[in-house]
Amino acid sequence: MHKKFVWPIRVYFGDTDAGGVVYHANYLEFLERARSEWLRVLNFDQRKFMQETGVGFAVRSVAIEYLKPARLDDELRVISTLKSLGRAQMLFTQSIERGEDVLITATVRVACMDLVRGKATALPTDIHEKFAKLI
Amino acid sequence: MHKKFVWPIRVYFGDTDAGGVVYHANYLEFLERARSEWLRVLNFDQRKFMQETGVGFAVRSVAIEYLKPARLDDELRVISTLKSLGRAQMLFTQSIERGEDVLITATVRVACMDLVRGKATALPTDIHEKFAKLI
Amino acid sequence: MHKKFVWPIRVYFGDTDAGGVVYHANYLEFLERARSEWLRVLNFDQRKFMQETGVGFAVRSVAIEYLKPARLDDELRVISTLKSLGRAQMLFTQSIERGEDVLITATVRVACMDLVRGKATALPTDIHEKFAKLI
Amino acid sequence: MHKKFVWPIRVYFGDTDAGGVVYHANYLEFLERARSEWLRVLNFDQRKFMQETGVGFAVRSVAIEYLKPARLDDELRVISTLKSLGRAQMLFTQSIERGEDVLITATVRVACMDLVRGKATALPTDIHEKFAKLI
Repeated sequence: MHKKFVWPIRVYFGDTDAGGVVYHANYLEFLERARSEWLRVLNFDQRKFMQETGVGFAVRSVAIEYLKPARLDDELRVISTLKSLGRAQMLFTQSIERGEDVLITATVRVACMDLVRGKATALPTDIHEKFAKLI
Repeated sequence: MHKKFVWPIRVYFGDTDAGGVVYHANYLEFLERARSEWLRVLNFDQRKFMQETGVGFAVRSVAIEYLKPARLDDELRVISTLKSLGRAQMLFTQSIERGEDVLITATVRVACMDLVRGKATALPTDIHEKFAKLI
Repeated sequence: MHKKFVWPIRVYFGDTDAGGVVYHANYLEFLERARSEWLRVLNFDQRKFMQETGVGFAVRSVAIEYLKPARLDDELRVISTLKSLGRAQMLFTQSIERGEDVLITATVRVACMDLVRGKATALPTDIHEKFAKLI
Repeated sequence: MHKKFVWPIRVYFGDTDAGGVVYHANYLEFLERARSEWLRVLNFDQRKFMQETGVGFAVRSVAIEYLKPARLDDELRVISTLKSLGRAQMLFTQSIERGEDVLITATVRVACMDLVRGKATALPTDIHEKFAKLI
């Protein structure tokens, strides 16, 4: 059973564009904030991990569907599940919702990277175990 | 006596730059979020107001000092006070703090604008009254 | 035969993140700039069109692969082709390249929208004809 | 006599907000692009310099006046002059113009920083010499 993580996001002026709605690229930032908060809830310190190990997470692919637009002042919920977990990567399914409406659906693949060498690398064991419990 | 409004902001990857710190322009976005939340607390609906009256707020000037950098995952507090209130504009003093440290200080002048004609216009009476109580 | 449109993009500090590379959401902005410039080359005035007709373009889906990171000061090329053209939507294939390297590949679906009613609408005839010549 | 550096900037969707104009924080990004391009014209490689010396530039203060708004598709010019040059910092005067109109004026103070220790540090001699010729 996939565990759901729900994170609220408020829409501000800086998120919108001249079409009066959230600029399409900015939803990817909302999705990333939700994944970061999920890591925080799991007591995983991204910054410390990156500094100590030179290893970080990199987004490898995003497939995103824009179903309905979000507007200024909207209170959104980002709903995330970890769909699959590999040795070196994670596949997230995420949606952005407002009340009853699903505005955005997305699939995001994130890899663990040796940032110095620019190569994919295995997730550390303890982190892998934490993630494994989310699926 | 000037009323203080305090709003928390978390730093995410999308806020940072290759220097490893928050990109300098993004602090203005943090300041704006805090002002927007202050309006929300006062039951002022910016979007509705803008749609119904064609009047909105526009930033007319910012003077910002960058004292110390904020980093990924930092939890910041934006502290705002309304320093003066005119017929058509407001002057805010804002700071961004982390624990004991003041990272940013700023003075932001915001004007009430007729968005169709692009001209400054008086604040509506009821809103002016709400703001007057904050000083 | 699909016509290619090539647009150069320089990477600045504001495009990067604390990982030292371009923040993943910002490539969508690069892709959008290239599509906007393509419209400009075709003498299509997005702003005027939007103001006169209430019709604009909205991104409906993006599938993006992040193959290699772009860094500060990189000079990139966005290469765009129109893959298919419907009555109310366009499918673009885009890549972002640096020298010999392909950094990003993406498929972007853009729909013509009645912005007031929030509904898909047919592309105006003359614009459809311009786009038809690009495939 | 202060040398002027002029850099063109096009306004895209991603630069605008729901007010239909460029989001106020984004002008700081336009100003930064112009300063970066000026350094490039002077054959100064920011990224290499940062990597080799651990020294980089940090914005210490900005005072910006928003006179008139820029809109989608506008072609702007950023006009920069170096107003004063210290041992460890530079003061720029910048404006953003469209045709005959001055939209933005700004004063930006940039310091040379040891990024590891987070302290101001002297500009390297050869760079100081290059900058000295611009005033």
